[in-house]
Amino acid sequence: MCELLGMSANVPTDICFSFAGLMQRGGGTGPHKDGWGIAFYEGKGVRCFHDPNPSVDSRIANLVKEHPIKSHVVVSHIRQANVGKVTLENTHPFQRELWGYTWTFAHNGQLDKALFNKQLSYYQPVGTTDSEFAFCWMLGEIRKQFPKRPDNLSELSAFIQTLAEELRELGVFNMLLSESTALFAFCGSKLSWITRCAPFGEASLTDCDMTVDFMKETTPDDIVTVIATVPLTENENWNIINPGQLVTFVKGLPT
Amino acid sequence: MCELLGMSANVPTDICFSFAGLMQRGGGTGPHKDGWGIAFYEGKGVRCFHDPNPSVDSRIANLVKEHPIKSHVVVSHIRQANVGKVTLENTHPFQRELWGYTWTFAHNGQLDKALFNKQLSYYQPVGTTDSEFAFCWMLGEIRKQFPKRPDNLSELSAFIQTLAEELRELGVFNMLLSESTALFAFCGSKLSWITRCAPFGEASLTDCDMTVDFMKETTPDDIVTVIATVPLTENENWNIINPGQLVTFVKGLPT
Repeated sequence: MCELLGMSANVPTDICFSFAGLMQRGGGTGPHKDGWGIAFYEGKGVRCFHDPNPSVDSRIANLVKEHPIKSHVVVSHIRQANVGKVTLENTHPFQRELWGYTWTFAHNGQLDKALFNKQLSYYQPVGTTDSEFAFCWMLGEIRKQFPKRPDNLSELSAFIQTLAEELRELGVFNMLLSESTALFAFCGSKLSWITRCAPFGEASLTDCDMTVDFMKETTPDDIVTVIATVPLTENENWNIINPGQLVTFVKGLPT
Repeated sequence: MCELLGMSANVPTDICFSFAGLMQRGGGTGPHKDGWGIAFYEGKGVRCFHDPNPSVDSRIANLVKEHPIKSHVVVSHIRQANVGKVTLENTHPFQRELWGYTWTFAHNGQLDKALFNKQLSYYQPVGTTDSEFAFCWMLGEIRKQFPKRPDNLSELSAFIQTLAEELRELGVFNMLLSESTALFAFCGSKLSWITRCAPFGEASLTDCDMTVDFMKETTPDDIVTVIATVPLTENENWNIINPGQLVTFVKGLPT
């Protein structure tokens, strides 16, 4: 199993605080020692850091933790390998281009081998994980259904939900997916989110001794949603997504 | 104009020394202040660092310079913008997947606007550079010509050469392209390479006061080729690629 971390915000925001908590689970407070990755969207651009080494002692993870990269959508993952060896090509998040947008995908869970019987169309996996295969299949189906980017986001969300439900029939499937403007969060079994906006308060990480006063870090107009497999803070009320439900976030808010 | 840096090696090798020289040109000894990027292949996997800020004072560039990431193929680029704003999505190298391989592309030069009349097929640009458009067109043509990965590398090299020649008719087109095993280096106007193998000697960077004794850094079986727009060292004999010529490197050697 793995851990997911996502962010959607209405202004470029750094995720250093939440990332610091997540990284502790990569070989520290959690068993997810088989690599980690994080994608930061800045406009349509995206920068991605991947490391097949445990996050807790990764120098690159330290850079991400200390270097505030401002972003409006983040997709991150730390891995405990089940299907696929511990290699760079098997390290989430995975990326492909569709409609001139870079799509980013991370998965928590495990899917039955029957997954690999699904017919792929435009996209082929580079590595050997069930996750990347599922992503290639999903994106190919989206491309067939919508040869051009649809104007209507809810139509796209509804289609992604049907694909995610189909994958969920094959096992555990929690997912974060984005194309730069929207963050699609599907809960197969376990996924939580919290929206922070004014008046901001303090938050304390569950996984390490770290507290942040968001009032000092934000402006009154900021809206920031953080999505995680398990709530990252101990003194806030997180929303639990129901299994089988997809929530689409845009500019920090569920749509 | 921009600067290219590539590496092909028969064993995982770090490029810290050459990268240190290149980074000086990003706002230091050169005018290439509009971002930089580097892709490291490790097996079929690839990790990529992108930064739209000048490399000479980039914290991420410092990490890459000091943190020896061992790789057998590297594609790197520092940018002086001509076509396309200075944004993350316009920062080389660009990547797309074909045949279950991640292709990486970086371009030095500038192409006529007529480029944008070319018909794209499978791949669409995310940003607005001539370079990414050219890459999308090339990869789409490769995909049409070879729906499956050809067994014969020279057949693929020859086809890439014809595409590169067609682009060269539109302006300045120096290119590095890789799918993880081969590094395709096309010289439109300016591109040099050097192969280092036993007996290894010392090399001194042109762009900063730094000398390395490769004898201490290598084993006798290592074969490492470095490709750059302009030779990076002052005391070695670099090979100049003829304009219009494509050289394909595999495991550190030209094929």
